[in-house]
Amino acid sequence: MKGEEAIRVLITGGTIDKEYDPLTGELTFGKSHLSNILSQVRCKARFVLEEVMLKDSLQMRSEDREEILKRCVVCQENKIIVTHGTDKMVETGLVLGNNVKGKTIVLVGAMIPYAFGASDALFNLGCAFAAVQALRHGVYITMNGKIFPWDNVRKNKESGEFEKLKD
Amino acid sequence: MKGEEAIRVLITGGTIDKEYDPLTGELTFGKSHLSNILSQVRCKARFVLEEVMLKDSLQMRSEDREEILKRCVVCQENKIIVTHGTDKMVETGLVLGNNVKGKTIVLVGAMIPYAFGASDALFNLGCAFAAVQALRHGVYITMNGKIFPWDNVRKNKESGEFEKLKD
Amino acid sequence: MKGEEAIRVLITGGTIDKEYDPLTGELTFGKSHLSNILSQVRCKARFVLEEVMLKDSLQMRSEDREEILKRCVVCQENKIIVTHGTDKMVETGLVLGNNVKGKTIVLVGAMIPYAFGASDALFNLGCAFAAVQALRHGVYITMNGKIFPWDNVRKNKESGEFEKLKD
Amino acid sequence: MKGEEAIRVLITGGTIDKEYDPLTGELTFGKSHLSNILSQVRCKARFVLEEVMLKDSLQMRSEDREEILKRCVVCQENKIIVTHGTDKMVETGLVLGNNVKGKTIVLVGAMIPYAFGASDALFNLGCAFAAVQALRHGVYITMNGKIFPWDNVRKNKESGEFEKLKD
Repeated sequence: MKGEEAIRVLITGGTIDKEYDPLTGELTFGKSHLSNILSQVRCKARFVLEEVMLKDSLQMRSEDREEILKRCVVCQENKIIVTHGTDKMVETGLVLGNNVKGKTIVLVGAMIPYAFGASDALFNLGCAFAAVQALRHGVYITMNGKIFPWDNVRKNKESGEFEKLKD
Repeated sequence: MKGEEAIRVLITGGTIDKEYDPLTGELTFGKSHLSNILSQVRCKARFVLEEVMLKDSLQMRSEDREEILKRCVVCQENKIIVTHGTDKMVETGLVLGNNVKGKTIVLVGAMIPYAFGASDALFNLGCAFAAVQALRHGVYITMNGKIFPWDNVRKNKESGEFEKLKD
Repeated sequence: MKGEEAIRVLITGGTIDKEYDPLTGELTFGKSHLSNILSQVRCKARFVLEEVMLKDSLQMRSEDREEILKRCVVCQENKIIVTHGTDKMVETGLVLGNNVKGKTIVLVGAMIPYAFGASDALFNLGCAFAAVQALRHGVYITMNGKIFPWDNVRKNKESGEFEKLKD
Repeated sequence: MKGEEAIRVLITGGTIDKEYDPLTGELTFGKSHLSNILSQVRCKARFVLEEVMLKDSLQMRSEDREEILKRCVVCQENKIIVTHGTDKMVETGLVLGNNVKGKTIVLVGAMIPYAFGASDALFNLGCAFAAVQALRHGVYITMNGKIFPWDNVRKNKESGEFEKLKD
């Protein structure tokens, strides 16, 4: 809980960063909202933002996961938050969990885009900021107030909720 | 990190729950927003809400702190979040830190009311939900992405920020 | 400007009423937001809400326009607001303009869904409420602070803006 | 309804422009939000913003009303919106109504600050933009979907609503 160590925030896209395009009526990626979000919530924890990509996680391929893994390994920080689409968050968690040692990594996303009025993005990001500071080394997913280790979590496609594989 | 244990959320008031009275033009307390907030953010962690009081912390007296302490002690949960005004949050933390053993208690508030557009309330509450699950027994304050033990924190009245007393 | 006459609000769908489905990641229609909107903005003008349909205007067919026309004709009110998708608002205005006499009808929509944070929906609806009370009989489109008669307006597909056909 | 004529927007303060000061917990004036508001709602009507003052209308004195009157008279536009606190809006309307001829002036405000989540500001401003374009010369107050001539309106202090003096 040394507040002085910076937290690396790797931005990879996902619902949290989607916005509405008034010309097409579609949801798209523009510029990441993370910088505005962390300013709005007056985040005083030290952090470094790094945009790796802006992708729907359904579009991510294995080379995208390799890229995210590489960024986690090469950065000097030991506390890392990865913003990520929820559909394939578990898959990326698997790659990171199997390959990164000696760091605390928290994957986080949102069910509703930040740009929408009633989004879960701010709450989920708050969870991620506390979790990455409080948890021991390892890879975790935090969504909607719950924290999961990378190897005991799945997304329930029916309910949209993350849940444990086994108790 | 057993997700099944419920988190007790003790509501005591503070900026987070203030709202605007259009007739007087003043900020007041109506009904607590906590239930709506946790519904909006789709919180899936088990929690129990308990409204202890709705007060500006500048109006709290020692009997109020005794009441909060009592609720922390008598409830069956070991993970407790206390929503609280920021001005005297440290003072209440002191009472809890000196008197509660064997529980994890996180005090949290907001600099901007939830009812305002650009509030830090959701982010701070997210921090509290993760912190109360991830931290060992003890009393903590979490505000704006930082986590402090109860005996090493103060509110800087100039900047409005919470900071460590000593490194 | 007799405030006592009720305003009939015919809901037909469009961007204004779209919401985000967290399970599919698509924009869909749920329940119309109009009732909540007019409550939030403390609308004190008398109005009657009537949901005709909830459709993207690109999906509207000639029988939908006939239905909207029928509702405008049979209702007892002389002041009518029609919420409508922007893509084919001009086409519906044409049907109404050619067939309704002795009433003031204002078509209105939004470029950004109400459920999004930075929507134009409330402003546009405000325009519609004032326009329907202040304008003489006829059919009008009001969008983004401008008012057009039904027979001198088009939607510019490049810019997304409504503009006059001729000065 | 010539869209090309600019609308002069005179900013004088009031609830619409109030914001929350996190250090004092008070509502204050910072920078006017009108420019941001009209950008958010994608206002395409031509307008010119002019900040006359930022005051709670309870603090306005007769010289303030003289100043507002002067600005209405000297500006070249014939369509003028005046943003104003609601408590003394009727008094300013009286001064303008008795002294300005040949222009359409609409006074408008809000019961809830724009910076709050559930504000009536955008809707009311929409009303003002349409009213100032659609109404004949004269001085009007528009609030919460209703339009009043300056000499037949009062604010009901009990309900917070504007109402006619006589039918």
